[in-house]
Amino acid sequence: MADQYPPATEDYPTTERSRVRRSPKRGTHGRADVHAILDASPLCHVGYVINGAPYVTPTLHWREGEYVYWHGSSASRFLRAAEDMPVSLTCSIMDGYVLARSAFNHSVNYRSAMVFGTARLVDDPDEKNHALRQLIEDLFPGRWDSLRPMTTQEVKATSVLRMKIDEATAKVRNAPPGDIDEADYPVWAGVLPIKSHLAPAETAPGMPGNIELPQALADLIASGRIR
Amino acid sequence: MADQYPPATEDYPTTERSRVRRSPKRGTHGRADVHAILDASPLCHVGYVINGAPYVTPTLHWREGEYVYWHGSSASRFLRAAEDMPVSLTCSIMDGYVLARSAFNHSVNYRSAMVFGTARLVDDPDEKNHALRQLIEDLFPGRWDSLRPMTTQEVKATSVLRMKIDEATAKVRNAPPGDIDEADYPVWAGVLPIKSHLAPAETAPGMPGNIELPQALADLIASGRIR
Ligand SMILES: Cc1cc2nc3c(=O)[nH]c(=O)nc-3n(C[C@H](O)[C@H](O)[C@H](O)COP(=O)(O)OP(=O)(O)OC[C@H]3O[C@@H](n4cnc5c(N)ncnc54)[C@H](O)[C@@H]3O)c2cc1C
Ligand SMILES: Cc1cc2nc3c(=O)[nH]c(=O)nc-3n(C[C@H](O)[C@H](O)[C@H](O)COP(=O)(O)OP(=O)(O)OC[C@H]3O[C@@H](n4cnc5c(N)ncnc54)[C@H](O)[C@@H]3O)c2cc1C
Ligand code: HEM
Ligand code: HEM
Repeated sequence: MADQYPPATEDYPTTERSRVRRSPKRGTHGRADVHAILDASPLCHVGYVINGAPYVTPTLHWREGEYVYWHGSSASRFLRAAEDMPVSLTCSIMDGYVLARSAFNHSVNYRSAMVFGTARLVDDPDEKNHALRQLIEDLFPGRWDSLRPMTTQEVKATSVLRMKIDEATAKVRNAPPGDIDEADYPVWAGVLPIKSHLAPAETAPGMPGNIELPQALADLIASGRIR
Repeated sequence: MADQYPPATEDYPTTERSRVRRSPKRGTHGRADVHAILDASPLCHVGYVINGAPYVTPTLHWREGEYVYWHGSSASRFLRAAEDMPVSLTCSIMDGYVLARSAFNHSVNYRSAMVFGTARLVDDPDEKNHALRQLIEDLFPGRWDSLRPMTTQEVKATSVLRMKIDEATAKVRNAPPGDIDEADYPVWAGVLPIKSHLAPAETAPGMPGNIELPQALADLIASGRIR
């Protein structure tokens, strides 16, 4: 199971790998800041190395305490290449375009987290079962118990990796354009916010007529969030 | 300037690096497919290696012909580490959650492109100027000419990298859950589509009262697209 300690109030260490050099005022090693961004985005991009060359694979992740998890096929090249290796896992949310008076001052508002550690296979059967349950429950609370139970074959075909967060940074921009000193230049400036939401559910073909969209999913769609 | 050839109808090569092994029916090396995904997403994740360890940095990209471009500070570690090195650049768009009757058959609908090549600094002044213009015009058509012109100092502070696409793959899932054989299991199944859109513009503080949101931006917001 995931560690409860260190407490989320203690920062991640600052090292040569993870010291924020560009716009350092936008960066933090705060545990709670990093966790909030990991939790806000279901999608991450995992970086790993094969024969010295970089690969970046998009995948779903979830977090429990100081561990981030992801899953896929037991035969996946991506999972096999990451196992027991140093990995960089990045989550990015683009919150808006920032339009300035000059080209140079354009930017985007964003939240991103970069996490470093060593990926490990979750091979204890109970931990693996717990982790897969969390994957579902984290996205769709209450859904696990309503599903057709997993088979031994399905569990065998699946690998779960997890990574203890050794180092991490969060970087956030959330502001209007930074060129108020040029406010008299005659061009519109400001922010175009970007939002993501769930659209109305599309029921699968072949569904028996008496089965309705569960209230928890209807609530999620209505919330305007995507998780 | 970017090459016009090979034509977009010719596939990227299939190599050991980029042969799609998992769910190969979802993968393609088609140039037009790869280009469409690169163009649909303004955000990519660039993978590079420092001292043998992987890093993944989120950044904006744009494409012209067979080249993908990105930009940042001339002093950026990320840009310096990528220059003249093999790079993996990935764009991912999450189009929806796919909820199945079993945990195992859950998935997401998505479009993603993985591009491999060697990053090069754009150092010819005309090409650099053209590229930065494209960055703006690609996101906000017609905006470049309305902006306060770039200064020599601003151009100097900026690096533009570009990468010829040597190899690339696109992978797409766009379907209801794949478990219609279990349609009698009594749980709701289907797709929750995910959409991104621009919310109403937030004008910068200090804007003179006579300057209105340009029609092109109003049209972009109204389109329901983010670019
Ligand atoms: C939004 C999103 C969420 C995803 N979530 C998960 C998840 O939770 N679990 C999971 O297992 N997979 C997920 N995937 C798919 C994942 O990106 C990989 O395709 C998959 O894990 C197989 O990886 P592999 O290295 O074993 O594939 P392989 O087929 O061995 O990869 C070989 C080559 O195929 C190409 N390729 C592989 N994946 C992609 C891709 N996504 N886009 C373009 N080209 C590709 C590349 O050229 C790669 O070098 C997700 C993808 C997206 C876009
Ligand atoms: C949606 C989005 C779009 C972006 N677009 C651009 C762009 O077009 N051009 C551009 O130059 N930059 C862009 N950025 C910022 C970019 O991700 C880098 O922060 C920036 O390029 C500086 O990189 P660096 O390696 O020089 O930073 P450094 O400060 O040298 O990196 C050192 C350490 O700081 C931390 N760090 C750096 N960047 C991030 C990050 N984004 N999130 C969390 N931790 C981080 C990491 O621990 C890293 O190892 C964008 C970011 C996001 C989220
Ligand atoms: C001619 C056009 C542009 C030039 C010359 C330029 C220049 C730069 C420079 C020098 C940096 C590095 C800042 C630093 O790390 O200190 C930077 C970063 C960045 N640029 Fe641009 N830029 C241009 C256009 C744009 C546009 C159109 C956008 C998006 C709408 C954009 C988004 C960003 C973002 C998000 C960063 C990262 C800032 C951060 O680290 O928080 N840029 N740009
Ligand atoms: C107990 C729960 C789960 C198990 C056992 C499981 C198992 C697997 C396996 C074995 C693969 C590899 C498929 C292949 O490459 O051949 C896979 C891929 C994937 N899974 Fe899961 N999964 C589970 C839950 C989920 C959930 C909840 C989601 C999202 C809602 C999800 C999304 C994906 C995606 C997007 C892929 C990639 C498919 C592709 O390559 O196109 N999975 N999963």
